[in-house]
Amino acid sequence: MQAFTFYASDDKLENRGQALKITGAQVNEAACDLAREVANEGDALVAGGVSQTPSYLSCKSEAEVKAIFKKQMDVFIKKNVDFLIAEYFEHVEEAEWAVQVLKTSGKPVAATLCIGPQGDMHGVSPGDCAVRLVKAGAKIVGVNCHFDPLTCVKTVKMMKAAVEKAGLKAHFIVQPLAYHTPDCNCQGFIDLPEFPFALEPRILTRWDMHQYAREAYNAGIRYIGGCCGFEPYHTRAVAEELAPERGFLPQGSDKHGLWGAGLEMHTKPWVRARAHRDYWEKLRPASGRPQCPSLSTPEGWGVTKGNPELLQHREATTAEEMQQVLDRQKKVKSSV
Amino acid sequence: MQAFTFYASDDKLENRGQALKITGAQVNEAACDLAREVANEGDALVAGGVSQTPSYLSCKSEAEVKAIFKKQMDVFIKKNVDFLIAEYFEHVEEAEWAVQVLKTSGKPVAATLCIGPQGDMHGVSPGDCAVRLVKAGAKIVGVNCHFDPLTCVKTVKMMKAAVEKAGLKAHFIVQPLAYHTPDCNCQGFIDLPEFPFALEPRILTRWDMHQYAREAYNAGIRYIGGCCGFEPYHTRAVAEELAPERGFLPQGSDKHGLWGAGLEMHTKPWVRARAHRDYWEKLRPASGRPQCPSLSTPEGWGVTKGNPELLQHREATTAEEMQQVLDRQKKVKSSV
Amino acid sequence: MQAFTFYASDDKLENRGQALKITGAQVNEAACDLAREVANEGDALVAGGVSQTPSYLSCKSEAEVKAIFKKQMDVFIKKNVDFLIAEYFEHVEEAEWAVQVLKTSGKPVAATLCIGPQGDMHGVSPGDCAVRLVKAGAKIVGVNCHFDPLTCVKTVKMMKAAVEKAGLKAHFIVQPLAYHTPDCNCQGFIDLPEFPFALEPRILTRWDMHQYAREAYNAGIRYIGGCCGFEPYHTRAVAEELAPERGFLPQGSDKHGLWGAGLEMHTKPWVRARAHRDYWEKLRPASGRPQCPSLSTPEGWGVTKGNPELLQHREATTAEEMQQVLDRQKKVKSSV
Amino acid sequence: MQAFTFYASDDKLENRGQALKITGAQVNEAACDLAREVANEGDALVAGGVSQTPSYLSCKSEAEVKAIFKKQMDVFIKKNVDFLIAEYFEHVEEAEWAVQVLKTSGKPVAATLCIGPQGDMHGVSPGDCAVRLVKAGAKIVGVNCHFDPLTCVKTVKMMKAAVEKAGLKAHFIVQPLAYHTPDCNCQGFIDLPEFPFALEPRILTRWDMHQYAREAYNAGIRYIGGCCGFEPYHTRAVAEELAPERGFLPQGSDKHGLWGAGLEMHTKPWVRARAHRDYWEKLRPASGRPQCPSLSTPEGWGVTKGNPELLQHREATTAEEMQQVLDRQKKVKSSV
Repeated sequence: MQAFTFYASDDKLENRGQALKITGAQVNEAACDLAREVANEGDALVAGGVSQTPSYLSCKSEAEVKAIFKKQMDVFIKKNVDFLIAEYFEHVEEAEWAVQVLKTSGKPVAATLCIGPQGDMHGVSPGDCAVRLVKAGAKIVGVNCHFDPLTCVKTVKMMKAAVEKAGLKAHFIVQPLAYHTPDCNCQGFIDLPEFPFALEPRILTRWDMHQYAREAYNAGIRYIGGCCGFEPYHTRAVAEELAPERGFLPQGSDKHGLWGAGLEMHTKPWVRARAHRDYWEKLRPASGRPQCPSLSTPEGWGVTKGNPELLQHREATTAEEMQQVLDRQKKVKSSV
Repeated sequence: MQAFTFYASDDKLENRGQALKITGAQVNEAACDLAREVANEGDALVAGGVSQTPSYLSCKSEAEVKAIFKKQMDVFIKKNVDFLIAEYFEHVEEAEWAVQVLKTSGKPVAATLCIGPQGDMHGVSPGDCAVRLVKAGAKIVGVNCHFDPLTCVKTVKMMKAAVEKAGLKAHFIVQPLAYHTPDCNCQGFIDLPEFPFALEPRILTRWDMHQYAREAYNAGIRYIGGCCGFEPYHTRAVAEELAPERGFLPQGSDKHGLWGAGLEMHTKPWVRARAHRDYWEKLRPASGRPQCPSLSTPEGWGVTKGNPELLQHREATTAEEMQQVLDRQKKVKSSV
Repeated sequence: MQAFTFYASDDKLENRGQALKITGAQVNEAACDLAREVANEGDALVAGGVSQTPSYLSCKSEAEVKAIFKKQMDVFIKKNVDFLIAEYFEHVEEAEWAVQVLKTSGKPVAATLCIGPQGDMHGVSPGDCAVRLVKAGAKIVGVNCHFDPLTCVKTVKMMKAAVEKAGLKAHFIVQPLAYHTPDCNCQGFIDLPEFPFALEPRILTRWDMHQYAREAYNAGIRYIGGCCGFEPYHTRAVAEELAPERGFLPQGSDKHGLWGAGLEMHTKPWVRARAHRDYWEKLRPASGRPQCPSLSTPEGWGVTKGNPELLQHREATTAEEMQQVLDRQKKVKSSV
Repeated sequence: MQAFTFYASDDKLENRGQALKITGAQVNEAACDLAREVANEGDALVAGGVSQTPSYLSCKSEAEVKAIFKKQMDVFIKKNVDFLIAEYFEHVEEAEWAVQVLKTSGKPVAATLCIGPQGDMHGVSPGDCAVRLVKAGAKIVGVNCHFDPLTCVKTVKMMKAAVEKAGLKAHFIVQPLAYHTPDCNCQGFIDLPEFPFALEPRILTRWDMHQYAREAYNAGIRYIGGCCGFEPYHTRAVAEELAPERGFLPQGSDKHGLWGAGLEMHTKPWVRARAHRDYWEKLRPASGRPQCPSLSTPEGWGVTKGNPELLQHREATTAEEMQQVLDRQKKVKSSV
């Protein structure tokens, strides 16, 4: 049970006109309490997490950035979580800093980057990233967010191969999007024109999830989860695919039957005929949007850490700043 | 606030091996209580509804089918709902029977068919259907389910024109799917190969919902809702589009800003550049599925009321029956 | 063998800055000579044809328009062609005038409209159009150009049903495009954004042609041809499909074998495996253009005969006129 | 002017039941005569070419394969062609052998592989391939066939970078397909399910050709041509794009005007509005095939040189051999 502490650092909570009504510490404490409450319903572990900071993006020093991670970690230690996660980092350097801070707690540390096969924002390969994170002290390494399941599994396989080649040991984790993103560049779905309010046509079916779960398992990944876009039925499909390995079906599975078996009760005969695995596995679902393309061109403004446009500030985005980005958007579009 | 009494008739609850642990009356009573409880949080009305029956499909008599509707209605009267709905009928004849029963309650009656521009399963046009329902006593007529929003608005426009041409008066209702279905025949999304477990690529965006709400309103429809696939954010988008007419924004609207305005706070400049209406209105979202088509061929087995394959029974679907439908599926597919 | 006299009337040859270096009569004479020369290589018939005129579009009188047709016909009579064709008419009225003129020659007259199932530019249905043309004296009626093969066959079927219902007799002709156009409105492919210089992704395969030929034949159409986009291998495919009925294979058929049989000689085993009918019939060919849609929105400016924008003139299009249409294009696009 | 001597070696002319009615030498001689006749109409050069051999694929020795190339070259020398081309090689080793033979003639030698960015069939990178060919004696190196224009330009850029890095000198050549093939693996369009009889939806527009010509020129490639799928209007578009550099427009350019300028004469105002570059450059042409995907999965049987299934023979493919490939096709398909 992961406490909902994502991006809950003070520098993020105060960014771009977001009024800080409560402190980061308050958010982190409440999140830990909630997670523990739910975890106690069963036998789940509780994790607290830190993620990338506006301070790093704005070129603050290693000491400043590490101080932010430490501030969050102090809450997690006080709340005695079971393990720690450094997640959603675009630059391996910042993730290393986070792991270095978190491992001082003595608790197990997991670390995920939000990168794909092309590596981090500065071109460090997935393999090199993984080796650096393990050396920094992470027990579990992998990726989360930004890419679709099969792309993420591919990336973690590259990580695993490099870690093993380096003679190191680690467990592996994957927490992909529930959106198909074959058209992404290194920045992931943030660059897709559909992000974040028109991603619907990309949502995975439950059958896509079966395939994901199987491929992740076969790749030797044992921490298999999900990120943006995952609905409960997606997670259930992952658990159903791995029921043979786990030895039991997930809750709610009895509501529908595996591979559409529940359709045997349907009124219409041609829907009853869909109550089997072969039907759903082979289906190539249509979008119902014939005037839309099947792939987009990611925007690729070429803005990375250190670029003035990525400097963050407490004040709300000004009208002048908005005009600048709109002008640039227009220019980028007309050159595509 | 519509009580969740959909398909809650005893003949449906006992269909095809579905074990009847509680009676239809119990379901209907509990649903009314729940709806009233929630409605009382504000000033909402409560409606109870009946829908098409396996009995009609299995060619039972008018008296038998009407008895089923009456049994449900008796609960609604006992629970004193504010109005009644006859919804999700594929045959206008059965809907007329339902309206005739419901109007004996003295409460206002709304009636919706799950049809598209081609009319009901026996080819009765939307206009003729609407006139018949108004004559039967419905105060509100329209369509629900089976087709996407723009198709449903088109169908209700045909109904409205016919009702007005006949010199009758009625209010109009539309409750479409949240799935794009331009490739449907008269049977709606039931016939699409993706029904019901691979519809994800067809899900509407919130911007599609803005367009739907505006077109429905402009068509003179005033009961504007949604059916399968609607998520709360879809309904919110409908309410946001109609805020000028309603005079206020819906709850939760402050969380995101209209037309993506909240993106002005985003870290990445190219995402901030998407914080405006023009961007989202013009976007043609990609499916991320280049190996899938954009339209499907509906199955069209040509099975309608009276066909032996549509006779319903209490027993679970047998292995032999399953083999028959699988054989037919194989045959239909190879002839496409 | 149809003489290449399409649009070869003086008012068309002088339109919009097209300098008339030779007369329409000269074009028509030369075309007849060429056609006869080729026809004499075998036992083919020669036809001369007239088509719709800028004069009709510019609201000239019946007498003026008929004089244009007569001028062309006089050449055909002088050259003693075997039969006459009135083709590519968007308005049935003008086609009737053409047939009335041509039948005075005493030669058999065929008449084709470039319309689809929605009928002519003024909404006259295909059935009504066909009846009027037969009554005007056409022995063969049907459609050419503007729509894809299956749409054209559908249109001619509507014509045939109406002609038979009216107790009349005629032969039927179909000469479709070799482009897929499911997204057209009544104006046909002229309205598609891809017309005329980006139609490539819509080109039919030879296997599409087999299907077309079979459906046309089954519909009772016996003059089965092609229009824009047809390459010799398309026509050969039509002839190959109908080889059983014709009793012989077309020239060039020995070069490739039927249904890909020639692939048995290919170097690669997986290409040899494609040497059979089932493979090609079931294939759904990809566009290789994932950033393009599968359907377009036809432009639909709503400009028909009588509209000032359709008045034709001898002078070249002026810069001012070009600016007007560009402004309108911009306006239409932004409202989509 | 390239003589049509493609695959005109005796071992190819006798392959798989192809009856050898005339010798390879006769074909090569006649092709040289034809090419010279046409070249003499202007001031064009004549080239004779050799291509990959069934003998290499069937693991014949270097001496045997080189003897085949020499036999063809002897004809070219006798006919005194201006330069020689070694083209369409999937394995760089065989291309090297060809270049080594051809350079003994003393004539300039060009060498093209039919590979993409992944390199030759045995995984040798484009850069390494190019360096080896230049070292073997080729004055011009590059790629032809198998991939679309932009993919080919990308491949030649890799070649150019490697040749320059190695301190060598060469000219560069590109002769791509006129089909979009973004979904290919290393084997190119041979592996696409649409090869060779359903490639129509992939055909490039003339506007795609403008882009290709510009990118090839900008990459420093000066021998810019085309392969399978090129129609004369495609080649004209390449020449039109490069008219500023060449100083003149190609023949036939006056027939249509640049970038659709000729449309200013069109009858319909909305088509006149398309008479400009911006319109055609921005257009994303639809396929008109909504039930087809936009990308395919290449077959990838994994059969390369040395595999028994690639051994060639003089006899026609037997029924048994056909059954084997059909069985394998079925198996491959069901596992996709």
